[in-house]
Parts: sequence; C-alpha cells; structure tokens
Amino acid sequence: MTSDMSGDISEFIEFAHGLADSAGAEILPMFRNFGEVENKDQDGFDPVTAADRAAERVMRVEIEARYPDHGIFGEEFPRRRAAGAYEWVLDPIDGTRAFICGLPLWGTLIGLSENGKPLIGVMDQPYLGERFWGGPDGAFFRNRQGEKEISTRKSATLDTAILGATTPEMFEGEDADRFYALGKNCRMTRYGADCYMYCMLASGLVDIVAEARLKPFDIAPLIPIIEAAGGCVTTWDGADAGNGGNVLASCSPALHESALRTLNM
Amino acid sequence: MTSDMSGDISEFIEFAHGLADSAGAEILPMFRNFGEVENKDQDGFDPVTAADRAAERVMRVEIEARYPDHGIFGEEFPRRRAAGAYEWVLDPIDGTRAFICGLPLWGTLIGLSENGKPLIGVMDQPYLGERFWGGPDGAFFRNRQGEKEISTRKSATLDTAILGATTPEMFEGEDADRFYALGKNCRMTRYGADCYMYCMLASGLVDIVAEARLKPFDIAPLIPIIEAAGGCVTTWDGADAGNGGNVLASCSPALHESALRTLNM
Repeated sequence: MTSDMSGDISEFIEFAHGLADSAGAEILPMFRNFGEVENKDQDGFDPVTAADRAAERVMRVEIEARYPDHGIFGEEFPRRRAAGAYEWVLDPIDGTRAFICGLPLWGTLIGLSENGKPLIGVMDQPYLGERFWGGPDGAFFRNRQGEKEISTRKSATLDTAILGATTPEMFEGEDADRFYALGKNCRMTRYGADCYMYCMLASGLVDIVAEARLKPFDIAPLIPIIEAAGGCVTTWDGADAGNGGNVLASCSPALHESALRTLNM
Repeated sequence: MTSDMSGDISEFIEFAHGLADSAGAEILPMFRNFGEVENKDQDGFDPVTAADRAAERVMRVEIEARYPDHGIFGEEFPRRRAAGAYEWVLDPIDGTRAFICGLPLWGTLIGLSENGKPLIGVMDQPYLGERFWGGPDGAFFRNRQGEKEISTRKSATLDTAILGATTPEMFEGEDADRFYALGKNCRMTRYGADCYMYCMLASGLVDIVAEARLKPFDIAPLIPIIEAAGGCVTTWDGADAGNGGNVLASCSPALHESALRTLNM
C-alpha cells in the first residue's frame, strides 16, 4: 500500500508539472499583452483576462483526459465533482491584479487534494522561469540556475519576523485591527505578492503571511509546499486552512503559536 | 553643439549600461543569500546589506576612473561634489526590503544629472534580466526576449487608472489622507514595487504612482525614463521632483493634472 501510494504521488507530481507547463504556455504570450480586462465584481473590481480562462481550460482538458474520475475545482469554471477521493484545485493566475500591472509575482496554482486534504501543490511563475512544489517527499524550487530543496527560516521570532500580505485592502473591520496588531509586533510588513509571498516563506525569506477572505484555490495548492518546507498554515482561529477564509502561514510551529496569540489578543 | 551633445549622451548611456552590468554582477550572487541585514535606522527599520554597498562601490570606482570631474551622489557613501555640470545619482538596490524578502522587484538605479537636472536614467533588474532606460532619445526596455521602445498608456482617466505605491506605511498624517483620497478615485491601488512600479508606468501598465518621503536617488534616475515614455513626474505640489520628497508620476499630462487636483483638494 505504501509503495503504491508513493508511486501515485510521483506520478501526480509529474502530471502537475505538465499542467504547469501547459498553463504557462497559454499565459506567457499574454503577459503585458492581455487585451481586455473584464470585471467579475459588480460592486468592486475583480479582474479576469483571457489568459486566466485559457490557462484553466487547458489544464481541465488534460485532467479530464488523464484522470476522468478526479474532481476539478478551479477559479474560472464550474466545479466538477470527483467520482473518487481526488480533486484538482486550480488557480490559473493567482494575482490577476499583479498580472495586469505587469508585475511578475502572479503564479499558476495547481493542487491535488485527497478526501479534501491538500496532498501535493505546485506554484509556477513562467516569466521568471521559477517553480515551487511540495508534497510528502519535501518542498522544492527550481529556476533557470537549477533545482534545490527549500525550507523555512526556523530562527525567526515575532520581533524579527517579516510579515507579508497581498494588500491592506483585504482586511475589513476587526480583521484590520487584528492584522495591524500582528504587524506592530513584527519587524516589518511587506505588501504585494499574492501566492509568491507564501513561496518566499517556504524558501526561508519571509516569516509570516496573514491574509483575509481567501478562496480555497488561493491557498489549498500552497499548503503542501509550506508544510513540506517546515512551515504551518491554519486559519486565524487555528483551524484547517484548506477551504480559505482568513489564513495564517508561519515559518515554524513556535512562531505560528506566537502569531496566533497576537491575532487573537 | 547639438551633435557633440548627442554624442555625449550616447556615450553616457553606454557607460551607464556598463555600470548596471557591474552592479548586477555584484548583487546577483547575494540575492536570496545576503548574509546579515544591518539596520541604518535607530528608531525604525532601514535595512542595508553587503550587496548594496558592494554594488555602489564598484560603480563609484568605474565613474571615478572614467569621469574624474563628475560628481557622485549615492545612497550608501558620502556625496562627491562635481567639478563640472555632471553628477551621477546612484541607488545600488532601490527596494532593499523587497531584496531581503526575496521578491525580484528591487532595481539598481543609475542616473546622470546635468546642472541638477536628470538627463539620462537606467533601472536594472538583473535577476529578471530586465533593463529600462531613458533619455533625450526615448525610453527603452529589454529582457531575455528582446529590446523595444516603451511608452505610457495615454488613454487612462482617473476612474480607470491603476495607482501604485511601495507601501501605505510611507504615508503619515495628512499625506495618508491625500493618498487615500487619490486612491478612492482610481480603479485600483497596488502596493509593493519600489522603482519597478515607475517602470511599469513607463511601459503602459500602471497609470499613476504616488509616493511620499523619497530621497533624490529614489527618483532622479527614473525621471528620464518616465518622461521619455510620455509620462509626467512632479512633487505633489507640482514642483520639480528631482530632489525627492512626495512624488507623483502619471502616464499623461491630462491624468497628471487630474491626479494633482485630487491630491490637493
């Protein structure tokens, strides 16, 4: 059973790398050349481009062909329920706002969950030629220079920690008070990096990421990367983060505990 | 006189490209591998690394050898006054905070001012292999795929504009009120990109950048790039931005006027 399972996992990771290649091939020609930006939010601004849709579409076609009984839960098209235990969780462009600003910190997120629990995850940044992935065998990074295993910075304490979030605008009401209380106790706060910030945490460069109102596909694919690198991810209440909501990621169990305490003071 | 002058300018731009190459060669091996972070600010956190100092040092040595009567005004070492009209304005790593977070949106800024007025400027991002430069002959961009002339997005109006800034933490008191008033009138606000945001403005992807308390070397090298691409740069009061302070950059004269009006309502 164990060896069958690890065979499956290598196969899933290899397949996910292929999905990332295909998504990148769709997106890259449209980076800084994306045509019209559509707004999905009547009351605000939630941009989507042809690149988001083309990338999710190509991944769906490949998954349906290879794993017809797997579910697919993506940002741009309706959810396809799984016949079995496995569901692919896709965000073709996490950080569409960064994408339309020309900032290369967006990423393609590809996760596979087993009975609702994140099993493996890939974050791909094709313009940088960077890819982060994780699962039961560890967390890894590759760029144009090579490939290596990554791990979080275990030494960080709250007062020396670097805190990241995509934008202060994601925090409303009490969430804002809680986030700023955490920020006041950290060394510095950096905004503006979507999924990329979690990968910097997994790489030992950022210590805490705290974000609000995430969707499941914004975070589920990142959980196996963060955890395999030695980090922790929960909601701000310490519960499972796989369904999104207010998410806290930290580089070590000790720092996670300090950060949770500060968020809940 | 005119042809002599344009000869000088091509020579200066070529020399500035060489400085960017040398700075990048110093910095790149230390990106995500920077050793100790020193804090220059007793009351806050103003990080500097060995990479900042090594990059500025190598550029100073080259300038002193080639143009002994030119001045040098850099972030990390004392100002060397010019014997003549020309002064090099250097920020070896603009965005040291991004640098220590592993985020590849920092840049090396190299400007040449003539009698205090920015004449040419270069922004180099060696990890991305991207370079932006500008002067009397236009604004240009190159990356691993090729080279092209760049220009701002002329069509943006305030209500469709993308506004950028490095961090909301740079705005204190009245500055914050003025910035948020501007943001409320734009389509979206994006944080977190230092010099890179001005280059996205010059590339037609971001429409307004408003920042507070900049030092001269944070902005002077970017002015020739923004202006040659069709944009405008002034202080929030409409004055010369070459000495830093509160800086506003916009993609067109019409949008600049709207943004100035909103900042000063």
